[in-house]
Amino acid sequence: MNDDTTCGGSTDGTNSTETETESSGCGAKTDGGTAAEAAEADTGSAGSSACGASSSNTSEGDSASACGGASSDTKEKVDASVDDFEADPGRLVAVGLGPGHADGMTARAKSTLADAEHIVGYTTYIDLIPDGITEQADELYDTPMCGEVSRTEEAIDRALAGNDVAIVGSGDPNVYALAGLALEILESKGATASMVEFEVVPGVPAAQSCGARLGAPLVNDSVSVSLSDHLTPMEEIESRLHAVAGEGFTISIYNPWSRKRRENWETACEILREHRADDTPVGIVHGAGREDEAVELTTLGELESYGETDLVDMTTTVVVGNEETYVWDDRMVTPRGYETKYDY
Amino acid sequence: MNDDTTCGGSTDGTNSTETETESSGCGAKTDGGTAAEAAEADTGSAGSSACGASSSNTSEGDSASACGGASSDTKEKVDASVDDFEADPGRLVAVGLGPGHADGMTARAKSTLADAEHIVGYTTYIDLIPDGITEQADELYDTPMCGEVSRTEEAIDRALAGNDVAIVGSGDPNVYALAGLALEILESKGATASMVEFEVVPGVPAAQSCGARLGAPLVNDSVSVSLSDHLTPMEEIESRLHAVAGEGFTISIYNPWSRKRRENWETACEILREHRADDTPVGIVHGAGREDEAVELTTLGELESYGETDLVDMTTTVVVGNEETYVWDDRMVTPRGYETKYDY
Repeated sequence: MNDDTTCGGSTDGTNSTETETESSGCGAKTDGGTAAEAAEADTGSAGSSACGASSSNTSEGDSASACGGASSDTKEKVDASVDDFEADPGRLVAVGLGPGHADGMTARAKSTLADAEHIVGYTTYIDLIPDGITEQADELYDTPMCGEVSRTEEAIDRALAGNDVAIVGSGDPNVYALAGLALEILESKGATASMVEFEVVPGVPAAQSCGARLGAPLVNDSVSVSLSDHLTPMEEIESRLHAVAGEGFTISIYNPWSRKRRENWETACEILREHRADDTPVGIVHGAGREDEAVELTTLGELESYGETDLVDMTTTVVVGNEETYVWDDRMVTPRGYETKYDY
Repeated sequence: MNDDTTCGGSTDGTNSTETETESSGCGAKTDGGTAAEAAEADTGSAGSSACGASSSNTSEGDSASACGGASSDTKEKVDASVDDFEADPGRLVAVGLGPGHADGMTARAKSTLADAEHIVGYTTYIDLIPDGITEQADELYDTPMCGEVSRTEEAIDRALAGNDVAIVGSGDPNVYALAGLALEILESKGATASMVEFEVVPGVPAAQSCGARLGAPLVNDSVSVSLSDHLTPMEEIESRLHAVAGEGFTISIYNPWSRKRRENWETACEILREHRADDTPVGIVHGAGREDEAVELTTLGELESYGETDLVDMTTTVVVGNEETYVWDDRMVTPRGYETKYDY
């Protein structure tokens, strides 16, 4: 296993303002401390765990986590372009691993990984794949949390060089994850998706993994909102929250809290409370599928106070009920709507 | 296999205004014609296919599809209550099968089904489960599309009677599907979820299965909206569409079209066009995972015209891009947002 604990992997040590954005819900492994959140000058905070976060995380790291310590204004360049490769390209597939244990992977995800010659991903996710599968790969390329862009680029370069490559992430590749990034980088290299027969293998997103742990909280029209403002301005996030909180959507909140973005959490709670009653049920699932998984039911009025607890961090998904959601037998239930037609 | 083609299964022949609401994306099998859409007096339309729809469908059937022909105002009663059972209850688990082929099932879904003594579900979904798994069950109880409420009740009764029961649906049980209904019916019977150790096994929802076929259309904040107004008033659906179309959400539309709800489709397209440019990319995926799967990319300005084609029906998911979505190499790409920070 190509174990590389330097942020940005072995090819490029200057990933400055990059953050990891993966769908939340998988366990984060502490990587022995290589990155500090230098760009946002949050002193004494980074600790020694995975890049870009102060404690544990698997989803989006804090804004501008610095990997390798370069300044936050350095624009990264894509190195190799398609003309640098002579071999016929291999295949590139983006695989969603689901919630964070082998059980939660689809059969297709497993067979795709078994067929791959190279498997690329964030260290924690590579570790989730059963040994029986990773042992079949020629090479594993894993990096700590920082380095999503360079890691994706590495995967693409390997495919362009003629290898069949699978790049993995938790949840689903279309949920705050790597599918879009892979296509953008392919284009920037002058390659095409077709050239590498690019495919996306879907997985169970965190909203549904966490929803399953809470009972039946989602059920009808539902929305996912990320509180990470690294790539999306907070004003837009606020606007989106207002829009959906004022309608009957059940809401799954990804990347809810980090030490440097407490304000986003507080603001989000305020916005939700403007539109929904304080007794609206809210489910909090920390580390779904991990050994330290924790599930708690609370209410909108109490939600903000959880920000300072261990329960809410980057591995947490928060599910906010709508006005019909209720708690029964320790489960969140959002009715389908049949109760007006059926006497039950 | 307990093959019962009468709508509502073998216990109750009077399911009148019930409709099937499953997450779209799985193949519908024609059931040989037992129901007419009597309640909405759509003469000459029902044809002979699955209950409640005129052609093929797996997700929500038309409003007020009549199974067994009872009037649409008959309120259904839940029959058995928990006191009617003497045995210790068995287990009840709701299992999401994903997009519609064995490949797309998680390992946990398969092992859960292999452990079940009884497997209950809509006929088409039961057929998706590999024989090797269904052969291990003591009993299979499948019904055509109509009958979601009675089928769920049947599953619960069997669990209360002491059997370990799995009730299946396509996609995920928390996405326009059976998790909420199961909990509601348990409560109505005076039972508790804990009594049957109720669990939800998540699956890949149609939004992500279809998103995967389109490339990377979802990526950031995203919403699912169903155009079925059987259980939700159309005014609410319109309000929700306005709310999200005016913000940067990528939008997955479930249950987009049926012959009796053409207006909903037309209205939805109009609303989307009020807020988004006519050249906004839209992806249409019909029958994801089925043999007749069809994928097409179009634009918002052209979308409405697809309503009358075979491409758009109840097995279709429509994915609407946001203002940043573009089409490249025949794929929808919604950028993550890194392009402002990285020179690629």
